[in-house]
Amino acid sequence: MTVRPSVPADSLFGLANLPYGVYSLPGREPRVATRYGDQVIDLAVLLDDDVFARPSLNAFMAQGYDRWTEVRAAIAERLRGPVPQEAVHELGAVTLRLPFEVADYVDFYASEHHAANLGRLFRPDSPDPLMPNWKHLPVGYHGRAGSVVVSGTDVVRPSGQRKGPQDPVPVFGPSVRLDIEAELGFVVGTGSAMGESVGADDAERHIFGVVLFNDWSARDIQAWEYVPLGPNLGKSFASTVSPWVVPLLALDAARIPLPPQEPAVLPYLRMAEPWGLDIELSVAWNGQVVSRPPYAAMYWSPAQMLAHQTVNGAPSRTGDLFASGTVSGPAKDQRGAFIELTWGGAEPVTVNGRERTFLEDGDEVVLTATAPGADGARIGFGEARGRIVTGSRPGT
Amino acid sequence: MTVRPSVPADSLFGLANLPYGVYSLPGREPRVATRYGDQVIDLAVLLDDDVFARPSLNAFMAQGYDRWTEVRAAIAERLRGPVPQEAVHELGAVTLRLPFEVADYVDFYASEHHAANLGRLFRPDSPDPLMPNWKHLPVGYHGRAGSVVVSGTDVVRPSGQRKGPQDPVPVFGPSVRLDIEAELGFVVGTGSAMGESVGADDAERHIFGVVLFNDWSARDIQAWEYVPLGPNLGKSFASTVSPWVVPLLALDAARIPLPPQEPAVLPYLRMAEPWGLDIELSVAWNGQVVSRPPYAAMYWSPAQMLAHQTVNGAPSRTGDLFASGTVSGPAKDQRGAFIELTWGGAEPVTVNGRERTFLEDGDEVVLTATAPGADGARIGFGEARGRIVTGSRPGT
Repeated sequence: MTVRPSVPADSLFGLANLPYGVYSLPGREPRVATRYGDQVIDLAVLLDDDVFARPSLNAFMAQGYDRWTEVRAAIAERLRGPVPQEAVHELGAVTLRLPFEVADYVDFYASEHHAANLGRLFRPDSPDPLMPNWKHLPVGYHGRAGSVVVSGTDVVRPSGQRKGPQDPVPVFGPSVRLDIEAELGFVVGTGSAMGESVGADDAERHIFGVVLFNDWSARDIQAWEYVPLGPNLGKSFASTVSPWVVPLLALDAARIPLPPQEPAVLPYLRMAEPWGLDIELSVAWNGQVVSRPPYAAMYWSPAQMLAHQTVNGAPSRTGDLFASGTVSGPAKDQRGAFIELTWGGAEPVTVNGRERTFLEDGDEVVLTATAPGADGARIGFGEARGRIVTGSRPGT
Repeated sequence: MTVRPSVPADSLFGLANLPYGVYSLPGREPRVATRYGDQVIDLAVLLDDDVFARPSLNAFMAQGYDRWTEVRAAIAERLRGPVPQEAVHELGAVTLRLPFEVADYVDFYASEHHAANLGRLFRPDSPDPLMPNWKHLPVGYHGRAGSVVVSGTDVVRPSGQRKGPQDPVPVFGPSVRLDIEAELGFVVGTGSAMGESVGADDAERHIFGVVLFNDWSARDIQAWEYVPLGPNLGKSFASTVSPWVVPLLALDAARIPLPPQEPAVLPYLRMAEPWGLDIELSVAWNGQVVSRPPYAAMYWSPAQMLAHQTVNGAPSRTGDLFASGTVSGPAKDQRGAFIELTWGGAEPVTVNGRERTFLEDGDEVVLTATAPGADGARIGFGEARGRIVTGSRPGT
């Protein structure tokens, strides 16, 4: 038996998108699917290919760029005709899972507006809000792969050490400055061997796709721990990704020139045509949109991030995830973290009629985004949703 | 057909040790083994258990503390009698593999002598060589799990950006200050769920075993990149582990009281009986021992490191690896990194008659260690060996 799935012309999940995800039905093993309108299409059934009868995208991603191109074309072709009824599920009837096994996770710091805002907040007396290295290399650090969770997973408020300027000694307890970072994540489909590197112009053949990424951050824990080796427990408790990986192949129409990079970057970071991505993010706090960070304003491109992280010969693997760092634009309502949006808590924002600074238990944050797709369409990224819950506490 | 493997009384790999590793023979799948003297004993054959007929220790480690205890007793009992001949291979006839799949990797900074030496080197004008947080929490950061390699793997000299104080702009090229860090690594056997934490007194039931760990470090790349988010490419190109995981259960006799911690640590880091490990490391540079770092001098215990990294609710997983950071003792010839041993390159050491500071291509470094075992035995850790080779260079 076959059906003909149809999708409204203005859907963010039409033929221009065709993202990849992993779904499950009660009592059945997770499998790879695409989203078409509000329907989830099982790709193992649609394409009769066992590489999709798996609980993650990794095996398919490892097949490489040419296969990604072929499969994308094949999905679009099949969806133009009748498809087997057992391939089609309503979005509301399935559980969406973490779409890929995360190998290594690196978080960058690629927004000049974000880096400068944090520099002004943390080093108010410094003449230059950016560190000397910032315009020479995409600064980044490794984070915890094991705490990457799919949208909808509750986020337990972390406990940890903090020490304010007035505190004589550090105190332990639940974070009181719990924040978000609205980011995009880039999923590596095919990696590079130890001792090799990925060229900046070759990176687009290695990057499989893009997810929404919320790098939840406990600013009080982070501020006390991070010197000299960087953030650790202030970030490692949870990071939320959207369930749909939008293929980089779907984002051709979203490519835009990268903002000018001055001083000129070193040759390994140069690109024949430096490209950024025109993706508009949105941050909703308890249902109210409080920020619309523009990815177009990012200083470093994802291709440069991948080139940089492999230029020392570090291997990269299928399933590696690297995130952009907070996306912030020049305007106040384009800032992608609450610490910027509220200027360290000094300038509260009004959410549903209340003045707010950092996250309270029960708060929910939802990231969404859209971008131009082929043939004038717009494409969506689904959502990265998380709610703050109270955790059990170790003895203090 | 059975044989009776015998081991000299002074072997570092007698019944007091029984480490776990993964070996392969030409054309055969890797499997789990123990080392007994200079023999490799296939555990799937010895114990007739398929959990060992796998290419990593992870499945066995995930079975938990009680199983580790049972299996250790069962191996010792079987080795006291005749064993199937097909279980026994000569050490020289097999290839030793990376013994476990690394989930997340965190590197700590747990030696007070090391942290103070680096503080004096990098901040000579500071009155206190330690950062204010150092005695309150085990400082650590996430590193690259995908570049953890087994002993014997060549290390390709990394290229990257560096900028000396005299350089007007950063330059790109092969690292000229390539260093080692002699560490121990701790392998998590059973983890903890997101939102939970491992208590410091419970950590010994989660830590499966101990490996030697060389955290190769490009000091010039690290110095330029690491502010404010910590080390990245200066470390991510390679880390070498020994092929044998010495069970924590084998190290009961090596437990010693932890050096006094003053100021008192917060309750979540307190232990009923704070234990450290009396393990003597040795660093050989082109065959000449240049340092003997004493693990007994470490300030933070592995149990505290695991308690700390999970106290914020970050999940831990089978295969997580956390390393101690450079092991350095109070004496000059107990320093576990060349940057300390040569005081930033200012005080060369003589290796095979030549004055040396950092690593040259062709250099080989071998870490070894011994510890007290049960019944007066000493136990060994095998070796973590690596040789520096010239890499192909991306265009500059």
